[in-house]
Amino acid sequence: MPGFFATSTAPRMQTGFSFELHHVDAHSCARRAALQTPHGAVELPAFMPVGTQGTVKGLTADQIRDTGAQMILGNTYHLALRPGEDIVANLGGLHPFTGWSGPILTDSGGFQIFSLGKMTNVSEEAAVFKSHIDGRRIDLSPERAIDIQQQLGSDIAMVLDHVTPLPCDPATIADACARTIRWARRCKEHASRSEQALFAIVQGGLDIDLRRACAEQLAELDFPGYAVGGLSVGETPEEMYAMLDALCPVMPSDRPRYLMGVGRPQDLLQGIARGIDLFDCVMPTRNGRNALAFTDRGPLRLRNQKHQNDRQPLETHCPCPACRHSRGYLRHLFQAKEMLGPILLSIHNLTYYQRLLADARAAIEADRFTTFLEKKMQGWSAAARE
Amino acid sequence: MPGFFATSTAPRMQTGFSFELHHVDAHSCARRAALQTPHGAVELPAFMPVGTQGTVKGLTADQIRDTGAQMILGNTYHLALRPGEDIVANLGGLHPFTGWSGPILTDSGGFQIFSLGKMTNVSEEAAVFKSHIDGRRIDLSPERAIDIQQQLGSDIAMVLDHVTPLPCDPATIADACARTIRWARRCKEHASRSEQALFAIVQGGLDIDLRRACAEQLAELDFPGYAVGGLSVGETPEEMYAMLDALCPVMPSDRPRYLMGVGRPQDLLQGIARGIDLFDCVMPTRNGRNALAFTDRGPLRLRNQKHQNDRQPLETHCPCPACRHSRGYLRHLFQAKEMLGPILLSIHNLTYYQRLLADARAAIEADRFTTFLEKKMQGWSAAARE
Repeated sequence: MPGFFATSTAPRMQTGFSFELHHVDAHSCARRAALQTPHGAVELPAFMPVGTQGTVKGLTADQIRDTGAQMILGNTYHLALRPGEDIVANLGGLHPFTGWSGPILTDSGGFQIFSLGKMTNVSEEAAVFKSHIDGRRIDLSPERAIDIQQQLGSDIAMVLDHVTPLPCDPATIADACARTIRWARRCKEHASRSEQALFAIVQGGLDIDLRRACAEQLAELDFPGYAVGGLSVGETPEEMYAMLDALCPVMPSDRPRYLMGVGRPQDLLQGIARGIDLFDCVMPTRNGRNALAFTDRGPLRLRNQKHQNDRQPLETHCPCPACRHSRGYLRHLFQAKEMLGPILLSIHNLTYYQRLLADARAAIEADRFTTFLEKKMQGWSAAARE
Repeated sequence: MPGFFATSTAPRMQTGFSFELHHVDAHSCARRAALQTPHGAVELPAFMPVGTQGTVKGLTADQIRDTGAQMILGNTYHLALRPGEDIVANLGGLHPFTGWSGPILTDSGGFQIFSLGKMTNVSEEAAVFKSHIDGRRIDLSPERAIDIQQQLGSDIAMVLDHVTPLPCDPATIADACARTIRWARRCKEHASRSEQALFAIVQGGLDIDLRRACAEQLAELDFPGYAVGGLSVGETPEEMYAMLDALCPVMPSDRPRYLMGVGRPQDLLQGIARGIDLFDCVMPTRNGRNALAFTDRGPLRLRNQKHQNDRQPLETHCPCPACRHSRGYLRHLFQAKEMLGPILLSIHNLTYYQRLLADARAAIEADRFTTFLEKKMQGWSAAARE
């Protein structure tokens, strides 16, 4: 199946990009694909570690690479506030700045305005808010969101979207959804870097009709990739899965599909089963910093007294640096407030996510993704039964 | 020149240890030597990173190794308090616990009782003090200091010494010095692990006669290595250097000489020039966490505004992971309170120290240590003139 970018007559084809859909699982909508970018390929489905402020917290670029990650995410909101996109540009752009030579995706700041901005006021022209760092007023228009991302120099930029909280009244959601579409058009018209692809974001809260309409209207604007935004903000996993069931079929099948800000290991596999190709989430690193380790038998809380004399690694077959140590040592690091604890558990959790995605890709290729998913889900729920 | 341990008739020769003095610099007392331990060799002069609580703060074992370090130090006081030597022993001893497979030296706790212990009361039997963590009473006798280090399983253990502050009245210093010698004898009589070498510690404040007498009496006890303790506690560098000038000639030349808790790069080279073989200090890691980077042109303070847009690495020819980044990026990490800042600067500073020691070893071998020292001193003072 030829990818979108392969159509050489496409007028706004980005330099160095292509999306190739290799295979769809025989028993689910899980897709095995690849995304080419100017900074290398990303095997899909993929999980992106989050490098909020130009660093995946606690990891060097080599350590990120060693977890198996191929693409990382940078946060436009955070980088624009500190150090500022001009400084990142002066220092060569995000790739030289962070030392990460692989693909980088930047979000647009839409979600952070919603979650972190103070006294946010969204007009048709722009979102206006106060910085959570120093309170200074920031105007973020769709055009400025693109300008910042162009200065940052990411491989993939995201349109500015209008995120609403959940629950939310229908009129507000509909209004924000319509604005998200208008802003997507403005972003597209403003974007000028041929070596940067721009993905659109589907909004619409938990209103299935609104979401589908949004996806269809954005599809008409012919973006090289589409994201689902505004989920994982308080709804139940079942509500999120139901939304993906309804939404994925109307999202272009020849473009990558990105579920933003998701999620737990089970959410990733459930998303993949419904046709999602790309994920990002702070969960592996944030939970790692809080002494929680992901394993095939469910999460381990390393501060628990029972690990004090435990010689076992987190997982016997995990190749990560944390798993060369005993659980007793890892617990000691957290008890002693040593930063190596957060570091090692972040590395383990990111490695766990990357191993999970690699196994998922192999399962899709072999048309056994549904049994793979079922087996993983059984393992994760085992701890609750033990 | 045959090393001490090579004498096969020595009754208390430790298994797997030897000290070989390869060469003495033609124009100074700088020594090029090697120390064999059950966990590998250490090329001398050497600098040991400090792994206070079973971790060199912020670095994985691989990262420590990549700085060029061959031996690390663990703190008996800290490990005995948390997690406790029994737990370290249950988890296989310090080597499996920390994941560091090379040589490990443990101090005895003497210095930490002096610097951290609360309400410390030293009798002939033991030091009694309250834990700085939870206030519980700890009795640390010479025998217990050895028992703990045997449980920790370090390659080199240190005798318990009685450290006094500076300045201090002569009678107190003399009393502590005499006790240190008696305790050294008790430690030696109590030590029973053949795969662990025990080094004695010379005390005596800034009293040269007392120091020399202490060194001579300890030499009669025939330890496999000798340390200089109780320096770098408030005296001037010149006072410390003068003490080493007087002391090194009476310390056995066929045993390694270890200057504890020292120091700045210049202190290391000045110590080496006087015949010191081994150093440890928290300075590279502690200063790294506080945004100070060591360079051949003196220290850089990364929080300084002038580094904001600086594309240069800390040092052009440094192979460490920090030096793949710009100073501007490193400054950003500290401004944004990202832990990668302390991590990268700790790695750079440890790499800087290890490169300095490697260069010092090469200079000694080539009989050009004094010109090497002079050139380095000029570089370090250059920043002050700029």
